[in-house]
Amino acid sequence: MKVLVLNAGSSSLKYQLIDMETEKALCSGLVERIGLEVGNISYKKAPDTDAEKKTALEMEIPTHNVGLRKVIELITEGETAVIEDMSEITAVGHRVVHGGERFSAPTVVDEDVLKAIEECIALAPLHNPANLDGIKTGMELFPGVPQVAVFDTAFHQTMPEKAYMYALPYELYEELKIRRYGFHGTSHKFVAGEVASLMGKKPEECNIITVHLGNGSSITAVEKGKSVDTTMGMTPLEGLIMGTRSGDIDPAICDFLARNKGMSISEVDTLLNKKSGLEGLCGMSDMRDIHAAVDKGDKRAELAVDALCYRNRKYIGAFMAALGEVDAIVFTAGIGENDDIVRLDTLKGLDRLGIVIDEKANEGRSGEPKKISAESSAVQVWVVPTNEELAIARDARNILNK
Amino acid sequence: MKVLVLNAGSSSLKYQLIDMETEKALCSGLVERIGLEVGNISYKKAPDTDAEKKTALEMEIPTHNVGLRKVIELITEGETAVIEDMSEITAVGHRVVHGGERFSAPTVVDEDVLKAIEECIALAPLHNPANLDGIKTGMELFPGVPQVAVFDTAFHQTMPEKAYMYALPYELYEELKIRRYGFHGTSHKFVAGEVASLMGKKPEECNIITVHLGNGSSITAVEKGKSVDTTMGMTPLEGLIMGTRSGDIDPAICDFLARNKGMSISEVDTLLNKKSGLEGLCGMSDMRDIHAAVDKGDKRAELAVDALCYRNRKYIGAFMAALGEVDAIVFTAGIGENDDIVRLDTLKGLDRLGIVIDEKANEGRSGEPKKISAESSAVQVWVVPTNEELAIARDARNILNK
Repeated sequence: MKVLVLNAGSSSLKYQLIDMETEKALCSGLVERIGLEVGNISYKKAPDTDAEKKTALEMEIPTHNVGLRKVIELITEGETAVIEDMSEITAVGHRVVHGGERFSAPTVVDEDVLKAIEECIALAPLHNPANLDGIKTGMELFPGVPQVAVFDTAFHQTMPEKAYMYALPYELYEELKIRRYGFHGTSHKFVAGEVASLMGKKPEECNIITVHLGNGSSITAVEKGKSVDTTMGMTPLEGLIMGTRSGDIDPAICDFLARNKGMSISEVDTLLNKKSGLEGLCGMSDMRDIHAAVDKGDKRAELAVDALCYRNRKYIGAFMAALGEVDAIVFTAGIGENDDIVRLDTLKGLDRLGIVIDEKANEGRSGEPKKISAESSAVQVWVVPTNEELAIARDARNILNK
Repeated sequence: MKVLVLNAGSSSLKYQLIDMETEKALCSGLVERIGLEVGNISYKKAPDTDAEKKTALEMEIPTHNVGLRKVIELITEGETAVIEDMSEITAVGHRVVHGGERFSAPTVVDEDVLKAIEECIALAPLHNPANLDGIKTGMELFPGVPQVAVFDTAFHQTMPEKAYMYALPYELYEELKIRRYGFHGTSHKFVAGEVASLMGKKPEECNIITVHLGNGSSITAVEKGKSVDTTMGMTPLEGLIMGTRSGDIDPAICDFLARNKGMSISEVDTLLNKKSGLEGLCGMSDMRDIHAAVDKGDKRAELAVDALCYRNRKYIGAFMAALGEVDAIVFTAGIGENDDIVRLDTLKGLDRLGIVIDEKANEGRSGEPKKISAESSAVQVWVVPTNEELAIARDARNILNK
């Protein structure tokens, strides 16, 4: 069984073809600049292996349809081919950002599901329309092949009311569905499952705090396999300090900025999403640049790292209190997998809470899961690479095998 | 030595005259409806004692000056008198809400200080102008008597940068002083000092989490006598769920409400401050009403209590992680002192974090400090009545004795 995984943005399409026997990617890549004068397609055959072979194309790509058609050509024809015929693709898995309260699990797309995803556009105006484009393209080019929608929000639908309700007028929840949804669900679920199995347990047997630190970041409290709280909120703005997103602020700052800087409310929203976070604090959003600047004595860069790690630490403490009992903490995604300084700063000095890092084990990056807590640590701490594409492909397989 | 403590609102003036030998209030009361057609003055002689005697007046009170003049009359003349002459009042202590970054300690007011308090008006437009009115009235009616300003924000000025900086463009901090200030500082400092002494320690010898739950609520992490983090932010809106204030929300909700409800940004701000919190969740803002409704099976009231306690719990966990080591947690203010259900719900099931409540000891309200943790609890948990007026009076005395 081979599953094509698609993640469609407004002008981009990320893809990966996964062989479910081996759970390895046969090829992967990115279609960019869709709708612009000149578009790009990158294609990797046998990615992340010794046999990896890259191809890059430049061409006009007016629609997602044209882009995906070209990708199918690369997958099935000539030197770049990894399968003989597109009929070998038995399912297409789609990442969909917002499933609202409707979707708590992956779902085979039909007309009704398309409509429900459309209804969630108000909650994710930037993402859901693009995700829908991706799904419709998949339906056009793979008629009869099941299209499976996997939602970023679905894993968090198990949160209890006390965790997902904001203390706002209750009517706003009824009328506009304003509540915490949470995101990165596919990743949180994936690494929670991995770490449970690494500890020789079933997900239902342990409580895990999953720390997904990438360009966007969130932490989730996973109780016996279920998300019970997460840092992101109605949108991916709330919670941790991210590359360009502020995470938590005093909500009164919105009005204060509007009054004192003559900004519109949507300008404030853009500032919080695009010009804040690490970028706002020190003018850089990439952690590698920031660490390099710290080494050169840049005080703002130092503040950015300190503030980010401190916010992480506070939420880990918050979720330890929420869960009562924690078996493991797991770091994942770009920063979580690769940044040993951030991991250490986030968790050092927490012996009294049962967390003791093995500083030697923590050092460096690793493509493989590794345990970074000391033997004396009551709470195990792990680094586990996330693989959202594989998780989506597994979800697609599982739902079809039911 | 006798200190008059004043807390001036825009149309009100709370007062208390404290004898610093006994640290007891000689009288206390409230001037209300200043500037309206009919104003009220309440006056208690020997408040909270068996000899307590109440007086109530109705009269036109066009200004704070007129109100305070009448209060001085009550204090010094006839049956209500508690001193013979106003010259016995050796200092006037004023509560000032916002001291910005300028004030990290109580300060004797002079022209320069008045100007600095004025400069903080942008940060507290509702409170600082009224506080200034109170100070100016004190200067007019007590010429030559030191007026001491005690700031709600001062205690929190020891917070490190990583705790007070938001992840916003750094220029906004430089230009508009947008940062976390924190409030209720006088109360947090007072109960932290009390609980240290109840444990037989100096404030510098212990780490304490102070939980001030009243109409407004905040929690502070106190490390060796110094505030290192607190839940309220640039304004008193951030953090916990309060009577009518939302506390933390996804800041993107501001823009979402404006777009979907056609609200202006200042209408959103009003909604978050006045129509949210407990009131928003269940239509009631008083915890006693809410508990009564829960007993009758009101599901929204139950959600309101659950959500409030859950938010408290998360912040206590966050501050345990921030502090690393915690000697005591202390509850204070209206809800903190009187609501055993909220205290228990906030802290139950945290054995793994070293917190074990003695449910019997926790029961009921108490006018005296009491310990409510079990002997087996690594972290002591206390209930300590706050007394902001006494704290302000002590601050005034201490600064004059220097």
